[in-house]
Amino acid sequence: ITGKENPQLNRKIIYTMAADHGVTEEGVSAYPKDVTPQMVYNFLNGGAAINVLARHAGAEVMVVDMGVDHDFEPLPGLIIKKIGRGTKNMARGPAMERREAIQAIKIGAELVEEQVEKGLDIIGTGDMGIGNTTPSSAILSVFTGADPQEVAGRGTGINDEGLARKIEIIRKAVDLNAPDPQDPIDVLAKVGGYEIGGIAGLVIGAAANGIPVVVDGFISGAGALVAGRLEPKVKQYLIASHNSVEVGHRLLLEQLELRPLLDLDLRLGEGTGAALAIQLMDASLKILTQMATFGEAGVSETE
Amino acid sequence: ITGKENPQLNRKIIYTMAADHGVTEEGVSAYPKDVTPQMVYNFLNGGAAINVLARHAGAEVMVVDMGVDHDFEPLPGLIIKKIGRGTKNMARGPAMERREAIQAIKIGAELVEEQVEKGLDIIGTGDMGIGNTTPSSAILSVFTGADPQEVAGRGTGINDEGLARKIEIIRKAVDLNAPDPQDPIDVLAKVGGYEIGGIAGLVIGAAANGIPVVVDGFISGAGALVAGRLEPKVKQYLIASHNSVEVGHRLLLEQLELRPLLDLDLRLGEGTGAALAIQLMDASLKILTQMATFGEAGVSETE
Repeated sequence: ITGKENPQLNRKIIYTMAADHGVTEEGVSAYPKDVTPQMVYNFLNGGAAINVLARHAGAEVMVVDMGVDHDFEPLPGLIIKKIGRGTKNMARGPAMERREAIQAIKIGAELVEEQVEKGLDIIGTGDMGIGNTTPSSAILSVFTGADPQEVAGRGTGINDEGLARKIEIIRKAVDLNAPDPQDPIDVLAKVGGYEIGGIAGLVIGAAANGIPVVVDGFISGAGALVAGRLEPKVKQYLIASHNSVEVGHRLLLEQLELRPLLDLDLRLGEGTGAALAIQLMDASLKILTQMATFGEAGVSETE
Repeated sequence: ITGKENPQLNRKIIYTMAADHGVTEEGVSAYPKDVTPQMVYNFLNGGAAINVLARHAGAEVMVVDMGVDHDFEPLPGLIIKKIGRGTKNMARGPAMERREAIQAIKIGAELVEEQVEKGLDIIGTGDMGIGNTTPSSAILSVFTGADPQEVAGRGTGINDEGLARKIEIIRKAVDLNAPDPQDPIDVLAKVGGYEIGGIAGLVIGAAANGIPVVVDGFISGAGALVAGRLEPKVKQYLIASHNSVEVGHRLLLEQLELRPLLDLDLRLGEGTGAALAIQLMDASLKILTQMATFGEAGVSETE
């Protein structure tokens, strides 16, 4: 990925991309959408899981407002790139304009580009957005032809009734908007989300600069899939952190030709799985650069 | 495990238990047995994988000569508890005397006891011993009744011919010695190894002191299984680090009622998988102790 014989991981950034989703008005999530900005404040205060795990991994967290339905004052650690105050309800029309989808991807790519100049060795993706497993499942359904039932899970923990509703909403959104699976921008615009587009952009920006991307869970995977459909070569720059409990995640990882490093029943997002996997990347690079060869250690070879 | 609401992981020790195996004269390993002492020197010089990964995890490595076929001079970092210069060839008789099996377990338990007094929060197990997948497979075969073919793998990488020979040797050793599966000491003595007994002792010593044990791979698992058959309660103190490529490891973990944290096709031993998993334990404890609750962070609850 880096083209270097002894790559270093001096600077690690986890981007936690936040946005809201109009489709939450259909009751697809167990939590109210106020949780999106509340969690952004939690990230900025350093109290969320991603803060804890990023500190553990020696990574910086950059929180990006891609389109939260809340006006943030300027705050240290918050990057405001708001495209809108949440997407529109995809069950009633396209989630966003085509130009907004392009803008989201461009923002993600530029976020990486800005940091490359300052020295950047690896990135992790992350997300925050109440309702965002719904567009992620819709994206996966469109690209693969899988029925919404096969790719929609419980997200933050909806009950059976909620899950059935979520599946129907995804089906309705896909039927109504008829995104063209051959046109990833169209898919992102019609049934995606601002943070998902931002993640697609992070992937493209990192791959273009030879920087490995540790992909978090289901939502990050949906963003990576959009990027992978735009340019399949980006898949070679991806590392799948973990196997999420979201039912569609396995299919998603197959589409990306990735095998996850961890299988811990994680379901949190934020970039938490990516943070854990970045530690494993650190460990693997230390093996590559610090371990003695058998020759160096005077150990006999096979008989 | 610890009985504490907010456990800390201040002091972590990985015990790399080393010994030789008489059964290597049957050609069951791809490497000559000189590699066992050579690797011990490599551990003491800090150049092996376990040194790299233990440093990464903030853990100390204690290298224990449980019965290497080499006389070590006193060296910093080496604990000499030699029971013999390798076990006897189990294809021709018992690997060790019953009293040696008991001694091995006692040594392991005492190693932990000594450190508990100085403050010890978690241990990882590890092994070094050319040929030691053969006794480990034999132990698993005896305890479960599984055919040697189902539980014997390629170890450090023997070819098809070597694997067929290894399976036959395990079958021969089990038939000849007829270890009593109801008597774990008998199993350890007849088809075990000094380091495997030492690992069983580490498990017992740690469990008795409320200290979590991160079990490395296949050989460590065999030691843990001996401990678990002696006293099933110890299983509650175990954490399985990873799912080894050794074909019998899945069955072994089932016997211990453990689900591995990592699935990385590791096959090295030494405690390397345990070191990686100790990092995950660190991360999980930080989540427990450092992360804000929804209440603390002012985040709304489910609707």
